Amino acid sequence: MTVKDSISEKLVASASKVDDYILSLLEDRKPKVLYEASRYIFHAGGKRLRPYLVMKSCELVGGNPSLALPFAAGLEILHNFTLIHDDIMDNDPIRRGAPTIHAKWGVPVAIASGDLLFAKVSQAMYAAYFDGSLPGDKELESIQAVTDATISICEGQVLDVSFPDTRDVSPEDYIIMVGGKTSALFKACAEIGAIVGGANKVDVERLGSFAWDAGIAFQIVDDILGATADEETLGKPVGSDLREGKKTLIIVYALKNASPGERKAILNALGDENADPRDIEAANEALVSIGAIDYAKRRAEEYVKSSKENLEAFPDVQARRDLLELIDYFSSRDY
Amino acid sequence: MTVKDSISEKLVASASKVDDYILSLLEDRKPKVLYEASRYIFHAGGKRLRPYLVMKSCELVGGNPSLALPFAAGLEILHNFTLIHDDIMDNDPIRRGAPTIHAKWGVPVAIASGDLLFAKVSQAMYAAYFDGSLPGDKELESIQAVTDATISICEGQVLDVSFPDTRDVSPEDYIIMVGGKTSALFKACAEIGAIVGGANKVDVERLGSFAWDAGIAFQIVDDILGATADEETLGKPVGSDLREGKKTLIIVYALKNASPGERKAILNALGDENADPRDIEAANEALVSIGAIDYAKRRAEEYVKSSKENLEAFPDVQARRDLLELIDYFSSRDY
Repeated sequence: MTVKDSISEKLVASASKVDDYILSLLEDRKPKVLYEASRYIFHAGGKRLRPYLVMKSCELVGGNPSLALPFAAGLEILHNFTLIHDDIMDNDPIRRGAPTIHAKWGVPVAIASGDLLFAKVSQAMYAAYFDGSLPGDKELESIQAVTDATISICEGQVLDVSFPDTRDVSPEDYIIMVGGKTSALFKACAEIGAIVGGANKVDVERLGSFAWDAGIAFQIVDDILGATADEETLGKPVGSDLREGKKTLIIVYALKNASPGERKAILNALGDENADPRDIEAANEALVSIGAIDYAKRRAEEYVKSSKENLEAFPDVQARRDLLELIDYFSSRDY
Repeated sequence: MTVKDSISEKLVASASKVDDYILSLLEDRKPKVLYEASRYIFHAGGKRLRPYLVMKSCELVGGNPSLALPFAAGLEILHNFTLIHDDIMDNDPIRRGAPTIHAKWGVPVAIASGDLLFAKVSQAMYAAYFDGSLPGDKELESIQAVTDATISICEGQVLDVSFPDTRDVSPEDYIIMVGGKTSALFKACAEIGAIVGGANKVDVERLGSFAWDAGIAFQIVDDILGATADEETLGKPVGSDLREGKKTLIIVYALKNASPGERKAILNALGDENADPRDIEAANEALVSIGAIDYAKRRAEEYVKSSKENLEAFPDVQARRDLLELIDYFSSRDY
């Protein structure tokens, strides 16, 4: 069994409990369309990586993962709330092969569904206090962690939408943006799993750093896949990132290091929705010849390495092996 | 001094502390545009009724209103977050005489600013726990109250945007919508003021009911002003509610009780952005002849009365007089 098969099975097993919990929070109330739209995104796929991070972090510090379940659900809800609003911001009609909520129900219902899900994050999280399973201090530390993450996500989203209009985006700007958009939530997941599991401050921070670096690696690998994978693996046409004018780490590095000819080839395709497949090919060749894809792979490996180092202080238990396997899965997706 | 002058002075006095607190939570971070946009709405006016409700409810139950300040700020932030998203949903380019955030910075920044403010609600609220001024149980009860309100607001917003496409909106549907859009937050303000002030459950509920009914009265009075006030009082052209096709209590009642001729006169102007001033006048005459404006006034008075009754159990202290004055101000705005 490959890493991919093994982790996929584990993700599926953990996802179904999480999904049940989430859907129980979104049962029909009036107006029905709001709840229908809010449930919809959870039926449309997703790997449930974030809940898995919560549960495994809780387990790693010796906590009871069933206590972490509402938090895992809450953090997955938060992630999906940001996806809904992100899709409106980016004007994306399709996610995971299905129409986005604003494409299906219109922008007002999509904005309100996102807001509702955001409110449901709190509801999922404070349940453990009100049913007596978690003391108030742990509860409030968790709420603080999720709030900090949400603030970072908003900052990352606005940075991201401003990149196409920003001339000189550096690789470090890119890392800051991804830190906000992806790593902040990964970090909150691991921290909250650890808090709920009863970890001390040092271990909470260690798990937070582990997840932060993992999030950056995850996003860089996504960018590499976007530049190198075929249409079937990608779920969207080859060259989509280029056509959308996305400032990925690859593009950002390439534009900084291109010869005039390579630069021209990239800008010829970048942000042009109707770019000719030959222009896309020429741009991709430039990305390779500049060494931008190798650079991104190196950066991803660095983050994988530093992510893993944060787990060294923990005992070699199943949860640690599961988390290490998760990182290997991040970094070994087919590129 | 009229009720209006007296309450205005008190609102202004309480507002400046609240505004300082809010702006301290929104100091510049990167990206600057996100924080600039998020502060903007607080510079653009607003009566700060909700913070006043929080502070006075806290005072009424014998609490220290300075303890309630961060909560008052948090609830005003929540209100403004919903305004930002509401303006996007309604496609409104102007609020309080100034461009809305999405009109000024675009929809992506406006969505993210709203989300950021939503996150800042939590930050404002849990501050009192982390600085040791409020025990965890009171803190979590407050977070629960604000979450319940937010869920109701989302429901109310979606009901509201669906009304123009709904044939038979009844006065009771209207009250449910306003309950979500306005009263749920008023209720949370009064409840949280009471919780933070150390009230018992019965008093928390009493203050919640007081504020719920006050919110409905407030919104009906707004509708009456929309139908009867002149352009200067209104801050927008006479007949705007009609032109926008808003299903106010007046319109909803009128359509249920109109003769065929009156119905025709109303529908002639309703939802027609370019309606002729003579059509607006004819529609307004129909609203009067049907008795819809008198009906709305009666309903507002009912809610004012039941709102006030909830305060009878409290001692006749200054905070109670201030809250009663607030209700009189709601219901005596110039119509």
